[in-house]
Amino acid sequence: MVGGGQGAFIGAVHRIAARLDDRFELVAGALSSNAERAAISAAQIGVSPDRSYASFEEMAKVEAAREDGIEAVSVVTPNYMHFPVSKAFLDAGISVICDKPLTANLEEAIELGKIAESSRAEFILTHNYSGYPMVRQAREMVRSGKIGKLRRVQVEYVQDWLSAPIDLSQNKQAEWRADPKRSGAGGAIADVGTHAFQLSQFICGTPVSELAAELTSFVDGRLVDDDAQILLRFKNGAKGTLWATQVAPGNENALSIRIFGETGGLEWHQENPNQLWVSMFGEPKCLLTRGGHGTSAIANDITRVPPGHPEGYLEGFATIYSEAADIIRNGRTPNCLSPTIDEGIAGMRFIDAAIRSSKANAQWTPLVG
Amino acid sequence: MVGGGQGAFIGAVHRIAARLDDRFELVAGALSSNAERAAISAAQIGVSPDRSYASFEEMAKVEAAREDGIEAVSVVTPNYMHFPVSKAFLDAGISVICDKPLTANLEEAIELGKIAESSRAEFILTHNYSGYPMVRQAREMVRSGKIGKLRRVQVEYVQDWLSAPIDLSQNKQAEWRADPKRSGAGGAIADVGTHAFQLSQFICGTPVSELAAELTSFVDGRLVDDDAQILLRFKNGAKGTLWATQVAPGNENALSIRIFGETGGLEWHQENPNQLWVSMFGEPKCLLTRGGHGTSAIANDITRVPPGHPEGYLEGFATIYSEAADIIRNGRTPNCLSPTIDEGIAGMRFIDAAIRSSKANAQWTPLVG
Amino acid sequence: MVGGGQGAFIGAVHRIAARLDDRFELVAGALSSNAERAAISAAQIGVSPDRSYASFEEMAKVEAAREDGIEAVSVVTPNYMHFPVSKAFLDAGISVICDKPLTANLEEAIELGKIAESSRAEFILTHNYSGYPMVRQAREMVRSGKIGKLRRVQVEYVQDWLSAPIDLSQNKQAEWRADPKRSGAGGAIADVGTHAFQLSQFICGTPVSELAAELTSFVDGRLVDDDAQILLRFKNGAKGTLWATQVAPGNENALSIRIFGETGGLEWHQENPNQLWVSMFGEPKCLLTRGGHGTSAIANDITRVPPGHPEGYLEGFATIYSEAADIIRNGRTPNCLSPTIDEGIAGMRFIDAAIRSSKANAQWTPLVG
Amino acid sequence: MVGGGQGAFIGAVHRIAARLDDRFELVAGALSSNAERAAISAAQIGVSPDRSYASFEEMAKVEAAREDGIEAVSVVTPNYMHFPVSKAFLDAGISVICDKPLTANLEEAIELGKIAESSRAEFILTHNYSGYPMVRQAREMVRSGKIGKLRRVQVEYVQDWLSAPIDLSQNKQAEWRADPKRSGAGGAIADVGTHAFQLSQFICGTPVSELAAELTSFVDGRLVDDDAQILLRFKNGAKGTLWATQVAPGNENALSIRIFGETGGLEWHQENPNQLWVSMFGEPKCLLTRGGHGTSAIANDITRVPPGHPEGYLEGFATIYSEAADIIRNGRTPNCLSPTIDEGIAGMRFIDAAIRSSKANAQWTPLVG
Repeated sequence: MVGGGQGAFIGAVHRIAARLDDRFELVAGALSSNAERAAISAAQIGVSPDRSYASFEEMAKVEAAREDGIEAVSVVTPNYMHFPVSKAFLDAGISVICDKPLTANLEEAIELGKIAESSRAEFILTHNYSGYPMVRQAREMVRSGKIGKLRRVQVEYVQDWLSAPIDLSQNKQAEWRADPKRSGAGGAIADVGTHAFQLSQFICGTPVSELAAELTSFVDGRLVDDDAQILLRFKNGAKGTLWATQVAPGNENALSIRIFGETGGLEWHQENPNQLWVSMFGEPKCLLTRGGHGTSAIANDITRVPPGHPEGYLEGFATIYSEAADIIRNGRTPNCLSPTIDEGIAGMRFIDAAIRSSKANAQWTPLVG
Repeated sequence: MVGGGQGAFIGAVHRIAARLDDRFELVAGALSSNAERAAISAAQIGVSPDRSYASFEEMAKVEAAREDGIEAVSVVTPNYMHFPVSKAFLDAGISVICDKPLTANLEEAIELGKIAESSRAEFILTHNYSGYPMVRQAREMVRSGKIGKLRRVQVEYVQDWLSAPIDLSQNKQAEWRADPKRSGAGGAIADVGTHAFQLSQFICGTPVSELAAELTSFVDGRLVDDDAQILLRFKNGAKGTLWATQVAPGNENALSIRIFGETGGLEWHQENPNQLWVSMFGEPKCLLTRGGHGTSAIANDITRVPPGHPEGYLEGFATIYSEAADIIRNGRTPNCLSPTIDEGIAGMRFIDAAIRSSKANAQWTPLVG
Repeated sequence: MVGGGQGAFIGAVHRIAARLDDRFELVAGALSSNAERAAISAAQIGVSPDRSYASFEEMAKVEAAREDGIEAVSVVTPNYMHFPVSKAFLDAGISVICDKPLTANLEEAIELGKIAESSRAEFILTHNYSGYPMVRQAREMVRSGKIGKLRRVQVEYVQDWLSAPIDLSQNKQAEWRADPKRSGAGGAIADVGTHAFQLSQFICGTPVSELAAELTSFVDGRLVDDDAQILLRFKNGAKGTLWATQVAPGNENALSIRIFGETGGLEWHQENPNQLWVSMFGEPKCLLTRGGHGTSAIANDITRVPPGHPEGYLEGFATIYSEAADIIRNGRTPNCLSPTIDEGIAGMRFIDAAIRSSKANAQWTPLVG
Repeated sequence: MVGGGQGAFIGAVHRIAARLDDRFELVAGALSSNAERAAISAAQIGVSPDRSYASFEEMAKVEAAREDGIEAVSVVTPNYMHFPVSKAFLDAGISVICDKPLTANLEEAIELGKIAESSRAEFILTHNYSGYPMVRQAREMVRSGKIGKLRRVQVEYVQDWLSAPIDLSQNKQAEWRADPKRSGAGGAIADVGTHAFQLSQFICGTPVSELAAELTSFVDGRLVDDDAQILLRFKNGAKGTLWATQVAPGNENALSIRIFGETGGLEWHQENPNQLWVSMFGEPKCLLTRGGHGTSAIANDITRVPPGHPEGYLEGFATIYSEAADIIRNGRTPNCLSPTIDEGIAGMRFIDAAIRSSKANAQWTPLVG
């Protein structure tokens, strides 16, 4: 693991996720750019001192040389470090499991795509919401034509924790996200908007071809956007709206998506992830539940406990890790849907287009690159 | 009443609403443009034959001349008739209670505004969602500063009944709405979009200054839009998204609004209208209920039954009629918030701007007129 | 109308309900046992002075003798007056629309049953929850065998307004309900318990044969029960639990019922009355909506507005009045399901058995009489 | 681990729970009473062949003798084996983490209590619902007097999977539960009723002193109850209703509890475990969320991810394991609330009293032993 030392939220999440299905063991780390903090963090989580590294470069080099060197590295640093760290490990032939967004900008993303392609190692992007069974269920239903030709997608990721200017003071989580040097050019658009975008693409399949975006910083003094409202046009003629915000009081982590086709509609909410509403036009609405009646193998294969026993965020995240283990050890199979570097590049195209569109007064802007 | 004969949905609604609080009695009508249907309809609803008119012009003239002539007329015709009918009665000094949207186009709306201003009669627009107690509660909370400076408004009006091309066949409700000659230039934007727009303005106060709209007709052969996605900019700097559609399977009449300010947020859903979510940043979310603890006089004054005994659509509509009676008889008081002709003109400006913006590839377009 | 003067909640409800579908006009009343208040109340609601009576006996006598005398009387007094008032009007040949519970005790109920049987007039009991479309939908589904042989019924009516001892001070609504002389022997069991009992019987058909009840007065000094927990045994072998309380903070008027058969289940909540959950074993749960896809004529015939436009308490109540008009004028037809005096007697048997069971330490007690 | 071989649901749950917080490693097992299946299961989950035992007696003996012997054993067998297995390990000085219900009958429970008391090892009962943060939050609120003197408890555990007679055919999970020789005398009362009972006791503190129970087997040919409706009397004068069923179509794992005191109420649903409704009489209802505003340290100390990122069943279970590690290594601290053997004995008293009450026609029966 690179990053994820003391005080980091996402590092602990990755560690639990990696452990939950018993597919990985954490044996090495460069847990902090601060050497002392790295050592303390390593001790706390059971990484032996000889495999706790002061820098990711050293870690990549030494681990690649060890006979019992690591099989894969988790990259859980602030966004601007995703590129150099991923590059170092891919170059060393070590598979990379990297947090999103892929990189700090589109150029890096494209470059990393080339590096990944030429590496013998694998690259998996932890767009963890792809790991929820009912998201997979939705994907299968849309792609198999259950709701007819796609017409509309409403996706939003709504939080409230940046409603007040906490990033301008002390909060570690808030601080780096609000610093363009470390988070990249986007704020909410990158931090949560990319999740919403990826979710819509993951489920629907048809790519977004252009967008009209308006990014806003509602909090005075904030250097990145804390709110993004975006109109989407999909390649197949469908339309959509994406809203990503971190300044909507009363919302903790309200990622949700509604998808409407010619003959039916679907609705999913991340905060209640074990349910999926299915509405066929002309019939009553029905509620599918994880593992429950009417669900598909593709969803049920990634559940662990019976219906009615809620699974949540960590389980969805763990599915990405389990699939990463499968991919690294056996290669990708059709049902192994954990995000690839291509989805990471698409996410960077999305951020890039949104920022360009917003600067041009929300002009329609194609996703390119 | 003008319009509202056999087979008309909204006419029956207006009649119940007018009767519910016992403030009006229906005594005269020109219930259909078809004379025979008008007579049959009159008989069915208890209008005596001598006050059942074959044309609205005759009705306005004769009733204005009667000593016991009507105090007010309900205009419940297809949209394109709102202007001539309202004009006829206003000119005759009879107050008008008119359905929305105000007219078929902006020019007529402005003209009608002048007529109303110079008439001694009153004009009330039945934007009925303004009659829900929890909408009034929300209005008071926003306008009194409870949620701080307004930042974001998410409003949507989502239906599914036009998902299939029923307007191209037989459905009376669907048919005139989908005919630009009778409904005006807008489809969903006029039929439900104006409700969403008015709701946002009614609650928030600050006007929408410009919008970027994309109107779509998803159903082949349909001549008006059945879906509208619109970005909003408010005069005070707030941003918003408005979505109006009639092609989203699984949605019956899902008008909802979420409003976020610097310190709090509100959420209301028309299909469960007795509840209002209130979220103050840094506190747990709370659920206000109609007539329940923590609600204001402005909301409770328009309720009829105790909390927990649900009121609905007809009761909200009846509040507009009760207030119309107050306005006509005693003049408007500050808490008498039923919509005016100005709100109707604003709605026509909204439709007009949306259509122009959409034709210009969703370019930002000011609301003018 | 007898009762329903100033400050009475239920009188105003009956008046709106009677008016809503335009089937009755209120022309006479003995609105209060206090002559002055009766006169003032009459003036307020538009009853002419010559038909505002100082006593119900006089009203029954005079109205029966008038050529244009009333067709029916609404009895909306405290419970202990239901018997003498209903008797007076039935004896005078005037139909009675009476609030529940039927009488103050079982003996009176049986006696009133005989009087009603021998009268040429009709008797309708306003168990208003029978007037909700989705309750009728549930009834039809259970009785037609949709959910298989009935196994379990969970019904509850949960309020909180008597959590504090307000009946011991000033509240008019609370006061008479908590006085055994005026409300009868039961408190919550009579006020809300009878609604829950009637709802279960109305939907399920199979009678409750015996019960084990525990009535409690949680508030010190209260003379009647404010909470009742009751086990039910149905004649067909089904089991049930009924909970009626007025001391559960956070509940306004939470009447709900869940019904389970061998092959399916149903769930309905009064505070959200336009929905009915239907669960067939082995299939996903579905949500029926009033007027929506998959509903029956028996439910849709008593709706007024399209799906998604919520109807509530007053509309359900109005359905009872509309059916009362049908019954009085044309006789009862099969789909005219408004409660009869027999359901009122059954309710009194329920109260009687519950009180006897509770005094006998919750011993199983048959419903007799 | 003893039990939990191929095809066993709860064994896999315990393994994930043990691993999730990285406090235990699974190194030995007697995973099946069938030697071949035990060996295969051991291989599948990574237990080395030399520590895969053919019998629990051997495992207890050998592991107790090893220098690196196990610290604790998870007992995940059918109910009737809980006693002999727990006894063997406690006698060997190895701590026991045992599934519920404690034993097959009350006598064994009391005996095991004595054994545990005299053992130097610890005993933890995996009443996993005690591990949900919002259950702990509710417990603290009730016990600290937030809702005033306790009046009513409504607790239910509702499932549907035994609606059809699957236990009479092939389902492994259903089969042993429905066999009194292996599950003990109770069916639903033991399998889910004990969870509901324990939850009510865990939160409220005041013990249930007597109960009136009616157990039913709705499915023909079933030898144990599949439904239990029970009235509760608490020592402090509070009343309650407990309903446990496995034959209610439409319910997956619907454990819920509502608790009402003199001044407030709480409501929690296992299928949406990250929320807790709090209603103070005279105030609007509020919704606490796991980790959200207004929650206590006692709840937040056992959460892993931020509010809005749902935790579920496995996380709650893992908390029991984490606390077991704390208890075994450092002794029990005040906030370490994982269930003790005393709670297991109380559960057996509950089953015993319920069965005796039911046989005596639901007579009030004290919990003794």
